[in-house]
Amino acid sequence: MAFSPLIDQLIDSLRCLPGVGPKTAQRMAFYLLNHNRDQGLQLSQSLDHAMKQVGHCNQCRTFSETELCQLCTNSKRDVQLLCIVETPADILAIEQTGVYRGYYFALMGRLSPLDGIGSDEIGIPQLRTRLSDNHIKEVIIATSHTIEGEATAHYISEIVKPLNLKLSRIAHGVPLGGELEFVDSGTLADALADRVIV
Amino acid sequence: MAFSPLIDQLIDSLRCLPGVGPKTAQRMAFYLLNHNRDQGLQLSQSLDHAMKQVGHCNQCRTFSETELCQLCTNSKRDVQLLCIVETPADILAIEQTGVYRGYYFALMGRLSPLDGIGSDEIGIPQLRTRLSDNHIKEVIIATSHTIEGEATAHYISEIVKPLNLKLSRIAHGVPLGGELEFVDSGTLADALADRVIV
Repeated sequence: MAFSPLIDQLIDSLRCLPGVGPKTAQRMAFYLLNHNRDQGLQLSQSLDHAMKQVGHCNQCRTFSETELCQLCTNSKRDVQLLCIVETPADILAIEQTGVYRGYYFALMGRLSPLDGIGSDEIGIPQLRTRLSDNHIKEVIIATSHTIEGEATAHYISEIVKPLNLKLSRIAHGVPLGGELEFVDSGTLADALADRVIV
Repeated sequence: MAFSPLIDQLIDSLRCLPGVGPKTAQRMAFYLLNHNRDQGLQLSQSLDHAMKQVGHCNQCRTFSETELCQLCTNSKRDVQLLCIVETPADILAIEQTGVYRGYYFALMGRLSPLDGIGSDEIGIPQLRTRLSDNHIKEVIIATSHTIEGEATAHYISEIVKPLNLKLSRIAHGVPLGGELEFVDSGTLADALADRVIV
C-alpha cells in the first residue's frame, strides 16, 4: 500500500542514508511531517548546498567548499609535519586528540586494485606534489590497520623513502583500557613486535 | 574542530532525524559526499516537496498532498466500516494485514491533556462530521493499547454510542507466536478478560 506519491518518494529517498531501512525511513518521514517541517526544509537546503558546492581542498584533498580547506590555510600549524590519513573523518579523530599540530593529506580511500582503486584514485600524484614542499621534515602514515590500509601504507612509504624525510607510522598495539586477557591475539602480536625500549 | 561551514551545517541538519546522533550524522554526511551526491540531491528535493506540499486529507485527516487521500477516493472500499486509528503508520499496518476493506479516520495523535492535546487536536470535530455519513454502520476503534490510547478510545466510544452504530475495538490478548509463559501478566489478564466463547 502506498501513502501518497510525495510521501512515498520521501521515504524512498531517505533510504539512501546509510543504515536506514524501510521502517526507519517511514518513521523519519512521519516524524518530520508531524513535528519538524522547518527542520526538514533546513535539511533539504543543507543537502542541496553541500552536494553542489563541496569539493576537495587543492592541497590536502579533504572535503572543502573553498580552494584550500580551513586547516591548510591555518598558518599556525607546524609546517614540518605531514600526516597521511584515509578520510576526512580520520582527520577529525586525530584533531580531537589535541596532540597533533601539523598538516594532513587525505587519500580519500585506500588502495584496492580489485575494486579499481589505484594510485590515481587515492591521490598519489597530488601527494607527490605536496611532498615537494621543502618545509616538510617528517611524514606520519596513519592509514587504517587493515590489510588494505597496510598495503596503502607500504606503497606510500616506498614513495617517501627516496625523499630523505623522517618517516613514521602511528603505533599499533593494546588500546587504552585494554586488558590483556581480552585483547585479540593479532593486536597482542602487534604490541609485542612494536615494543618500545624504556 | 570544524570541517567547513557547509559540511558542519549538513551534519547539524541531519541530527533533526530521529535516532541520529552526532557520529551517525557525520557518517551520513561523508557517505553522501563520497559516493551518493545524486541521491543526496534527490533527498533534498523530496524533503522540500513533502515538507511544503503534504497536508491532511479533508475526510480522514491522514497525510495527503491532495484534498482527499488515495484511500478516501477509492470507491471500492466498504462504506459501512470506519476504523479509527492514531497515526498514518497505523493505517499502513492495518492495510498490510489485507483483512480490512473499510475506510479510516486518523486522529493524528491521542488525548494527552497534560501535553495540551485535547479533543480539537485529535480532530474530534472532523470525526463528528465524518460520523454523520449515513453509510457507516460500524465503527472500529484501533487506538494503541496504552493508557493514553485507552483514554482516547473511551472518549471516542462516548461520542459514537448515542449514534446507534455498531461499535467495536480491536482485540487485546496474546500475540501470534506468544507462548503463555513468556507473555507479560498484563497481556494475559487482557486475554482472559476478553476471552471469546467458542
